[in-house]
Amino acid sequence: MKDKFLKPAASGGLLDRRTFLLSGLALSSAYPLTAIAQTVGTNFPQWMKTPGRDASAYGGPSSHEAHIQRHLEKNTPETAIFSIWPTPLANQRGIITPSGLHFTVSHNGIPNIDPEKHQLMIHGLVDKPLKFDVETLLRYPMVSNIHFLECAGNTAPNAVSFTALDQDCQALFGQISGSEWVGVPLKYLLQEAGLKPSAKWVIVEGADGGSHARSIPLEKLLDDAIIALYQNGERLRPEQGYPMRLFLPGWEGNANVKWVHRLEVTDKPAFTKDESGLYSDILSDGKIQRFSFHMDVKSVITNPSGKQVLPEKKGFYEISGLAWSGHGKIKQVEVSADGGLTWAKAHLDQPVLSKSLTRFHIPWQWQGEATTILSRATDEQGNRQPTREQWREKYASYSFNHYNAIQAWHIDQEGVVRNVYA
Amino acid sequence: MKDKFLKPAASGGLLDRRTFLLSGLALSSAYPLTAIAQTVGTNFPQWMKTPGRDASAYGGPSSHEAHIQRHLEKNTPETAIFSIWPTPLANQRGIITPSGLHFTVSHNGIPNIDPEKHQLMIHGLVDKPLKFDVETLLRYPMVSNIHFLECAGNTAPNAVSFTALDQDCQALFGQISGSEWVGVPLKYLLQEAGLKPSAKWVIVEGADGGSHARSIPLEKLLDDAIIALYQNGERLRPEQGYPMRLFLPGWEGNANVKWVHRLEVTDKPAFTKDESGLYSDILSDGKIQRFSFHMDVKSVITNPSGKQVLPEKKGFYEISGLAWSGHGKIKQVEVSADGGLTWAKAHLDQPVLSKSLTRFHIPWQWQGEATTILSRATDEQGNRQPTREQWREKYASYSFNHYNAIQAWHIDQEGVVRNVYA
Repeated sequence: MKDKFLKPAASGGLLDRRTFLLSGLALSSAYPLTAIAQTVGTNFPQWMKTPGRDASAYGGPSSHEAHIQRHLEKNTPETAIFSIWPTPLANQRGIITPSGLHFTVSHNGIPNIDPEKHQLMIHGLVDKPLKFDVETLLRYPMVSNIHFLECAGNTAPNAVSFTALDQDCQALFGQISGSEWVGVPLKYLLQEAGLKPSAKWVIVEGADGGSHARSIPLEKLLDDAIIALYQNGERLRPEQGYPMRLFLPGWEGNANVKWVHRLEVTDKPAFTKDESGLYSDILSDGKIQRFSFHMDVKSVITNPSGKQVLPEKKGFYEISGLAWSGHGKIKQVEVSADGGLTWAKAHLDQPVLSKSLTRFHIPWQWQGEATTILSRATDEQGNRQPTREQWREKYASYSFNHYNAIQAWHIDQEGVVRNVYA
Repeated sequence: MKDKFLKPAASGGLLDRRTFLLSGLALSSAYPLTAIAQTVGTNFPQWMKTPGRDASAYGGPSSHEAHIQRHLEKNTPETAIFSIWPTPLANQRGIITPSGLHFTVSHNGIPNIDPEKHQLMIHGLVDKPLKFDVETLLRYPMVSNIHFLECAGNTAPNAVSFTALDQDCQALFGQISGSEWVGVPLKYLLQEAGLKPSAKWVIVEGADGGSHARSIPLEKLLDDAIIALYQNGERLRPEQGYPMRLFLPGWEGNANVKWVHRLEVTDKPAFTKDESGLYSDILSDGKIQRFSFHMDVKSVITNPSGKQVLPEKKGFYEISGLAWSGHGKIKQVEVSADGGLTWAKAHLDQPVLSKSLTRFHIPWQWQGEATTILSRATDEQGNRQPTREQWREKYASYSFNHYNAIQAWHIDQEGVVRNVYA
């Protein structure tokens, strides 16, 4: 690399992406990447000497990637009543999560629903109570959109632990995933049932063993809510609500009721178990914040991230991560490689979509010294991530939902990456 | 539905989408969809009476969807030397194909490559021959984009068969899929190797049992080509080239060399077996068209499509399908429900991305009479799909690659959908 091309974007080794990419020979000269000149070999591997296997009716990952899995983070001992399986976020690139690795949080296990015996019922404050079977809904007009889905409790360890736990990106941030969700706009179904003037809320209930239920404001259901039937090009997986779920773009996971079978239109919320207990937020003054549905603007550097080890000192790396907001599009992500003293704008991969994961990255020349890297996202409504301290001031010390503070990863001189509070 | 809202978009029952959606009660009154008023039941199914199973480390589809598969369409008897497994396109909604159902065409079977023993070599007309192992490439700057991939031979039966075969959408159109592809722009690697002034082509070779190879113009490789490492959020599947493949947005499938291990920079093409044989197009005047890489503008109605049966006479349906072009974005899709006499513009789902599947749909009131439905796509460069007759005039009668003519589905009075030539 000609040094004249090397324009810093901020201190700590962050590089200006435009001039960096124009520098051409950057990677091999200034940043030798073990690229080795060698003549064409003749020692062919076994797989070039014989024909391979045939394809199959439904393919899976390479056996060499079998360790990329969801890991059970928490459950009620010896039952599946409540369990969390986060996504291996640091192993994902782009903005789509494979459905097999989409995070799941289930309160009552995964029911095995026969789609021919499942119906969606709309009743309560409507002119005409209606029931829809799956085949009927499949004939309705559908919309498709790429959105994130995040559990309200994602990153809870950083919210409640007094000292930063040495956990990886999957354990700390894995309760978020991105998918293309396809389904029937709920407004069509509600309009068909006919809403009475007093209608204001809808109690949405799932057909799981515990009848998970949430009260949702009618306004959201008439806006961008869908009855999702497809995810990433095929029918919903059982763990995501097969044969149908409510999908509320940008709103906390548990409100996106899986295995949905009943919508009761009412004039007030039902104060169900989950909305009165687990998913109410206790503020620092002791007051309770109910119905805090939006997932706020948030970001995380996925590479490098917790428990990874940088293989080469003074090496070139691309810092890459994800940002999202339940309020709309991501407008900007800033990255710091010097513990927050200076910040540089990261590049956002197109398309930047509303209420969707957005991939950011920035080139980085690690100098080999211990440092701390951070990312800070801003959405199109001007919301910006708080510091951990600012977030903590708002909530009671034992509150853990809706944690969206700036994440810091410390990198020591050996290249070991560790979760820290900045 | 108030009839005053019902504005036709074209004859044959195609409806204006905007006024249709504004009509509110449309679906139940004018188009009863078996939605049945009923009080809340008390006869709960078994899955609401017990907790469900736990989630798993890597999830799969519901057992009730196990029939949604790729089907082996063609192979060399008792070997996996050449085989085609098309995507069940009519069962997909949106623009993402699940990786497990992505079509595969393989010439020499699927090799089981150990990523630690795989390297990408760049040699020939370069200043510095280079080798990259997988770990090294994973540290390079990456880009992510949603693109289609289509086999040059997709829809070949309609190109060569004198009478239209009674086949379904999967068999006729299933050699196309859509994915988010993530990888390293090849221009970085070529710039690092340093191109000699005489460099014009690159011979790209795979590490499969037959060393599948294609000559690719350098210009494309310096434009938007990537060495793909991820597909739909996880490392490439073996059937898509694990641990790495060349990805050429908008270009015919076989040029996107899977299991890529060697790039030889040259001043002329190599005229490899596949580019001289199978993937050369014979024109109607007997001349051979070589290196016809672009996949042209094309579309297909996936619902309803071949071998489906419409369940209800005089019923409401949403006509939905996919359009794509290797030359850029889709600009417009027109649909006809009267055999091509009149056409209406279909709605295009956002985002409309370059060289990507684009989902279109339009509401349709089937009158119960036999009819033929068609779709006709136009891309941003003004390319529009030809009729079958126009396409046939250009190519020899036994040519079958790059078939992109307007597709017609006939619907008889019983609602049976059948492939026809319009």
